[in-house]
Amino acid sequence: MSNRIYTKDLSEHIGKEVQIAGWVDVRRDHGKLIFIDLRDRTGKVQCVIVPSVAEAYEAGKDLRSEWVVQMVGTVQERPENMRNDKEPNGGIEIAVSEIEILSRAAEMPFELGTNLNLDTYLDHLPLTMRTPRARDIFTLQATLAKGYQDALRERGFTEFQAPGIVGGDAEGGAAVFKVEYLKDKSAYLATSPQFYKQILVGIFERVFTIAKVFRAEEHATTRHLNEYSTLDFEMGFIKDHQDVMTMLEQTLRYIVINAVEKHSDVLKRFSVLPPLIPEKIPFMKLREAQEIIQKETGKDCSKEPDLEPAHERYLCEYTKKNLGSDFLFVTHYPVSKRPFYTYEDEVDPGFTKSFDLLFRGVEIVTGGQRIHDYETLIEKIKAKGLDPEKFSFYLEAFKYGMPPHGGCAIGLERLTQKFLGLENVKEAALFPRDMNRIDTLLSQ
Amino acid sequence: MSNRIYTKDLSEHIGKEVQIAGWVDVRRDHGKLIFIDLRDRTGKVQCVIVPSVAEAYEAGKDLRSEWVVQMVGTVQERPENMRNDKEPNGGIEIAVSEIEILSRAAEMPFELGTNLNLDTYLDHLPLTMRTPRARDIFTLQATLAKGYQDALRERGFTEFQAPGIVGGDAEGGAAVFKVEYLKDKSAYLATSPQFYKQILVGIFERVFTIAKVFRAEEHATTRHLNEYSTLDFEMGFIKDHQDVMTMLEQTLRYIVINAVEKHSDVLKRFSVLPPLIPEKIPFMKLREAQEIIQKETGKDCSKEPDLEPAHERYLCEYTKKNLGSDFLFVTHYPVSKRPFYTYEDEVDPGFTKSFDLLFRGVEIVTGGQRIHDYETLIEKIKAKGLDPEKFSFYLEAFKYGMPPHGGCAIGLERLTQKFLGLENVKEAALFPRDMNRIDTLLSQ
Repeated sequence: MSNRIYTKDLSEHIGKEVQIAGWVDVRRDHGKLIFIDLRDRTGKVQCVIVPSVAEAYEAGKDLRSEWVVQMVGTVQERPENMRNDKEPNGGIEIAVSEIEILSRAAEMPFELGTNLNLDTYLDHLPLTMRTPRARDIFTLQATLAKGYQDALRERGFTEFQAPGIVGGDAEGGAAVFKVEYLKDKSAYLATSPQFYKQILVGIFERVFTIAKVFRAEEHATTRHLNEYSTLDFEMGFIKDHQDVMTMLEQTLRYIVINAVEKHSDVLKRFSVLPPLIPEKIPFMKLREAQEIIQKETGKDCSKEPDLEPAHERYLCEYTKKNLGSDFLFVTHYPVSKRPFYTYEDEVDPGFTKSFDLLFRGVEIVTGGQRIHDYETLIEKIKAKGLDPEKFSFYLEAFKYGMPPHGGCAIGLERLTQKFLGLENVKEAALFPRDMNRIDTLLSQ
Repeated sequence: MSNRIYTKDLSEHIGKEVQIAGWVDVRRDHGKLIFIDLRDRTGKVQCVIVPSVAEAYEAGKDLRSEWVVQMVGTVQERPENMRNDKEPNGGIEIAVSEIEILSRAAEMPFELGTNLNLDTYLDHLPLTMRTPRARDIFTLQATLAKGYQDALRERGFTEFQAPGIVGGDAEGGAAVFKVEYLKDKSAYLATSPQFYKQILVGIFERVFTIAKVFRAEEHATTRHLNEYSTLDFEMGFIKDHQDVMTMLEQTLRYIVINAVEKHSDVLKRFSVLPPLIPEKIPFMKLREAQEIIQKETGKDCSKEPDLEPAHERYLCEYTKKNLGSDFLFVTHYPVSKRPFYTYEDEVDPGFTKSFDLLFRGVEIVTGGQRIHDYETLIEKIKAKGLDPEKFSFYLEAFKYGMPPHGGCAIGLERLTQKFLGLENVKEAALFPRDMNRIDTLLSQ
């Protein structure tokens, strides 16, 4: 289909004959005229089929929603009273001369684009994703991912492909999925590329990956998935966790600016404002955050090792109102709450050089400085009640000299969700896996 | 470490004091002088520590291979008789004034960079990858992956993140790994993003992904991995498989030219020539390839549905000698040998509009046109003895209208392997998983 013109480019061809192709989005009959809205990946255009073009008209009579067609026609201006200048291609239409049907479709179970409940939406993803809304979400997501890659490559990071199968439940925390591996051995699905990116700091100093990770937790929230995409980076020769926060800030600023620039139309369609990302993202220790919560809401959570979702939301509202930022760093989570490899702050014992980044009410990044000293790392593994023998591969990197380093992990689906103000993170995951569903319902 | 200078940039700082950091690559004592080759991610530089700088000299006495240090010193030209103009930084050295030890290392089990056997290499990856050779391999691999992304984005493809967990052994062919999913349900690891990229043709028309896929086969070859990175793309509104081959050809040409341009030094170090990719990559039907093999080698393989590895190697030699290409398309594999979704050639019944692409003796791509008609697809599923019910999610895309489409999958590790002439594909996989090993040996 070498001469095909995409609908977005049709206005450059007024008066000319063109070949177009796509899906029948809507079909309307007006007296003897047949109107078709043809949809391709770039947009839509109205096509008019008249009885005098007999062969096309015969074919046109059969057309229904989602049939796939290829058509030849002339691009013409619409009559003045038929123009809709608010829409792309609202001023033109195609006078159809030939129709070739490439594929037929069954009758639709519902009208596309209507406000389906989430379960129905997920039950029929191969169909329900054929909407401008879904195309917007995942086009933006691709731009976010590319922005992340571009920003880090620019800063000397090397991309790597992280393993999906791992030998053990390494961090001893997140629930893992078990895999029946070869020769009756068990393996597990990666919950994070953490160990591998740290090992690679020993080779490349600065690395990043986009990897699928897997958590075997029975969640029923609007912000958890059992499989998600993590944007992980790790960098060597840092002073402390603040170097990581600075790198993350620069990366996020690039991601945000790039996405807003490319997709201002998407933001408009979702009625969301560009994320507020000030010169310096505000930061506070967990204990300071807890003090603010107590002062402002009266709720004493100073004994908690982490923030509850409601408090994350509150802090973000507070930060937006008082500090003009949609982002907030919370640092210094207690040693007890963080993985064994987290660096303890020498000047604030019991607390770590770690951080979470909150964005519009939800944690989208977790990171910090890591322990690079071999002996300390072994001690910390033991202190968590874990067996250093099980970490022999990982530990070999540290046995042979590692620089001070740190990094973080951005959740791509949550970033997308909050960027566009989606209610549920499942809308920001292409084919979400949860406790009830892997494409189809598990109970089936 | 905000003022750190990378070793590659030191020659711009002759006569100046600089801060450098990295690993002790080699330490040599010459009389009272201590020489250190300091390695960072950009290269190496020779550092000289003299007794008159007492504090640095005391610290320098302790230094051993792989210790991580930060140093201050002055960049100076080497004495004429000490210059080595064949090496980067061979004309300069650092007169060290301060040394800070960031991390110590245990005594090395072997010298880095010596020719280790593959098992020893894999046993100690966190250490053995700290060589220019490994850095070259995975730097090139990152460039190949980026070239693939850039080429397809340029051509209107949208990137997506493919699922790792799937609901069934979809293609009914490749051996799959079973996962213990939630609520006592079973799931599987994806052997390919095939179904998802086809579904997404219905939304984006053109999509690509870089995904990890998993094959539960007990291989012991130099070209198989149990987990590998696939570069998959799929495109709608094609005429036939040749449109896919053309797109692949354009993409590969960009990948090759870009990588050769960026890494001519790597190719030199591996003593390999840039891949020969002519204006038009040669192509032949499987049966033609079999005739050539019979004519040239006397071996009759005309009854075989596929090529043996030895024949793939032979065909590539033949193609290079006679057609000046390191690449060869073989098309029209029999229906029996290809997955159910493969498009049968109307004018060559029993054979498919499918192809493999051979590169330097090994198949690195498989692809073709897919069936887009719903009824035909159901028939073909049944003809392979499979149950259409199990494909209900996938089939929904076809039930509601799909354009003619096709695509292919490039194996990233094999492409890397053959690009650099590596003996075993495991050298081109960061952390290879095989039947004996997931990081550490499974028998341990």
